[in-house]
Amino acid sequence: MYEVWGGWAITAHGIKKNYSLAIEKDKIVDMGPTRELREAYSFDDSIGKERNILCPGFVDAHMHSFQLATKGLTADQSLLEWLKKYIWKWEADLDKEKARACAEVSFVQMIRSGVTSISDYSSVHHVDEAFGAAKRLGVRALIGKTMMDRNSPPGLEQDTDVCLKESEALIRKWHGKHGGMLNYSVTPRFSITSTDALLRGSKKLCDKYKLIFRTHTEENLSEIKEEKKMYGQSVIRHLDRLGLLNERAHLTHCVWTKPAELKLIAERGASISHCPGSNMMLASGFADTPRMLKYGINVCLGSDVAAYYNFSMFEQARLACLMQKARLHDPHAMDHEKAFKMATINGARALGFKDTGELKAGNKADVITLSTHHLAFSPLNDIISQIVYSAFPSSVNNVICNGKVLMRERKLLVANVYDIVDEAQEILEIHRGI
Amino acid sequence: MYEVWGGWAITAHGIKKNYSLAIEKDKIVDMGPTRELREAYSFDDSIGKERNILCPGFVDAHMHSFQLATKGLTADQSLLEWLKKYIWKWEADLDKEKARACAEVSFVQMIRSGVTSISDYSSVHHVDEAFGAAKRLGVRALIGKTMMDRNSPPGLEQDTDVCLKESEALIRKWHGKHGGMLNYSVTPRFSITSTDALLRGSKKLCDKYKLIFRTHTEENLSEIKEEKKMYGQSVIRHLDRLGLLNERAHLTHCVWTKPAELKLIAERGASISHCPGSNMMLASGFADTPRMLKYGINVCLGSDVAAYYNFSMFEQARLACLMQKARLHDPHAMDHEKAFKMATINGARALGFKDTGELKAGNKADVITLSTHHLAFSPLNDIISQIVYSAFPSSVNNVICNGKVLMRERKLLVANVYDIVDEAQEILEIHRGI
Repeated sequence: MYEVWGGWAITAHGIKKNYSLAIEKDKIVDMGPTRELREAYSFDDSIGKERNILCPGFVDAHMHSFQLATKGLTADQSLLEWLKKYIWKWEADLDKEKARACAEVSFVQMIRSGVTSISDYSSVHHVDEAFGAAKRLGVRALIGKTMMDRNSPPGLEQDTDVCLKESEALIRKWHGKHGGMLNYSVTPRFSITSTDALLRGSKKLCDKYKLIFRTHTEENLSEIKEEKKMYGQSVIRHLDRLGLLNERAHLTHCVWTKPAELKLIAERGASISHCPGSNMMLASGFADTPRMLKYGINVCLGSDVAAYYNFSMFEQARLACLMQKARLHDPHAMDHEKAFKMATINGARALGFKDTGELKAGNKADVITLSTHHLAFSPLNDIISQIVYSAFPSSVNNVICNGKVLMRERKLLVANVYDIVDEAQEILEIHRGI
Repeated sequence: MYEVWGGWAITAHGIKKNYSLAIEKDKIVDMGPTRELREAYSFDDSIGKERNILCPGFVDAHMHSFQLATKGLTADQSLLEWLKKYIWKWEADLDKEKARACAEVSFVQMIRSGVTSISDYSSVHHVDEAFGAAKRLGVRALIGKTMMDRNSPPGLEQDTDVCLKESEALIRKWHGKHGGMLNYSVTPRFSITSTDALLRGSKKLCDKYKLIFRTHTEENLSEIKEEKKMYGQSVIRHLDRLGLLNERAHLTHCVWTKPAELKLIAERGASISHCPGSNMMLASGFADTPRMLKYGINVCLGSDVAAYYNFSMFEQARLACLMQKARLHDPHAMDHEKAFKMATINGARALGFKDTGELKAGNKADVITLSTHHLAFSPLNDIISQIVYSAFPSSVNNVICNGKVLMRERKLLVANVYDIVDEAQEILEIHRGI
């Protein structure tokens, strides 16, 4: 049993001062004022400092580790250009070694940014490499094979049956394994590349194994035009008609989703992952998150790397606020308390990771500490406001996931960062200029 | 004479590989391939690493060091609310000790974020403290007393004569001193708090001492309505009528400036500092920077702290691109090469800092190095794109200003960071909850 302590803790019951968590195996078994907890338990180890903030680990509810190699190369593209000119080519050329290098360097960057739970749309092939890297590096992961059975490039398009069979094999191999840290989600890429047969098959897999269903929806105006032609209605209505909208559905983007369809998503209890950085980067538009929250939708946040080029959830929370304030000319349009929840507890809910996303006794020990000696917090006035508007990945000094210490005082304990970075550079750099 | 070297250098003549700068006193006296330079000179010291990027120091063309103490407290306000409810009260209550603590902790954060040139609107009082801190910490600074002679709270409003006399005393005391590192600019806050007599007096001071004229313009719609009532025309036309629009004018914001007035600004050769983070944070709106550039205006970037809560110029460059792509639904609306120039050479021009803002022989040695082992640059594909879209302050490992090493391998050499942070917290924290 060990202790994590600091001057402040952001708990499920509010912000507490001079506070400690007692951690045993994978759980927060108790928490309270540091002095009291130290009297009640004999701790083997103590992580933290007087001027640290204890914070739930961040949840990146949408990213693509295998795309990381294209970081920096694909700026100034719209969604369909970006996909067709760059990303699909890269994904089709991927081999096992490159996939592993991408996954490792992504997850290392995420840990160093304070992320403990990830939701990775890997790609069509080599999905094992993402699971393997998540297992080795100790992050809580929802991973799925991206399925594409129409309108796709040769290296990525598969027969419907192959998509579903490969997915089912991965489910059996990985779902619920490694003490529940590894989880599978059924992941058709988006409707343009998915036949109805694939979507129906996805539903069967979700029902059979009680899995999260993930897909990209209504990100871009050109995409929506194509969908309207295909379905004669919005893709949201179409997914609903197939029975796919429910509490286990996790839709990414919904930039252009209309109020009536947002109401439907709310009624069905589905989650939306909002990716403000990516939506701006690809010039997709502004998602109406204030309305989503008003309707009671569980909105979470995704970095959407490599449609964005860094894994800071501080930055995504920041952008989620700034974007709404600016476009609605209303400084109250989105506040930092809501954005902080999107980046933590809402993400945990959307990924189906029970007992995570906030600090409370009985929850899994997914905890990070932030240093208030960091430039983000000097002077320290308002903890949540400064986490959202001031902090950077380097504010994070300790990262604990499922009770295991992954980073201590910024030293990664689960891998040698230099080796991973050097190896990734060597394996991936030959693809510069794709 | 010493060397700064790295695997890449962003020079005035493009990106060079395996490159070195030879630095003597305050200048880059030569530059070239590392091997050649090492043969040509005998260096006393060598700063850098094989996988470092040499980059011009960033220019933060607009910020308010004395407001730093309010960081985190004032979120979710529009401009006039924020000024009247919080900022003016804070500034009116400021004493010498608090002013010094604000300036020191601001400049330390800026150095640690890779900023070497700053443009500080300090406040009405205690301007000496900003100059003193800039001198002690070794940053290149343009600082001015904020002048307010109407519509202002009692602690800040002064008679026109007092505003101008105090400014002139500061000019004589500080302008051009410390080897040209300290510079004065004439700084009426904005038109609502400035009589025409003050603006005319400002022009006289600018002409007499050849100084930069700075003011806030057309940030917010309510402000513009008031100005329209006062002048019967836009404030831009009004400033022009008073003879204040010229090559030494530096206007901040211009969020709502119309095309005809932007053309006038271009014709007069004035600069605009764009503060995308602050404009979003205060819900002011989206400045039309693509049009400004099209008209040939010199556009630079400002963090506008404490209307924004961090000093990362990486982030301001990022936001300058993301904002335009999103609002215009055009991924080409603003690209990273332009944003990088705004954050460096354009800023140097707007602040009147000759021979800075880019790396070339004969220029002042204002240089930073970035580590490509940092998570922003793994893998490294495109240097400028990743500086703009991926990097964080922690990517910066060395900071040199005017030939003096201010930070080496992230250790600040000009002050003890912990002492400054602790002292700032102690002096400033009593003001929480203002």
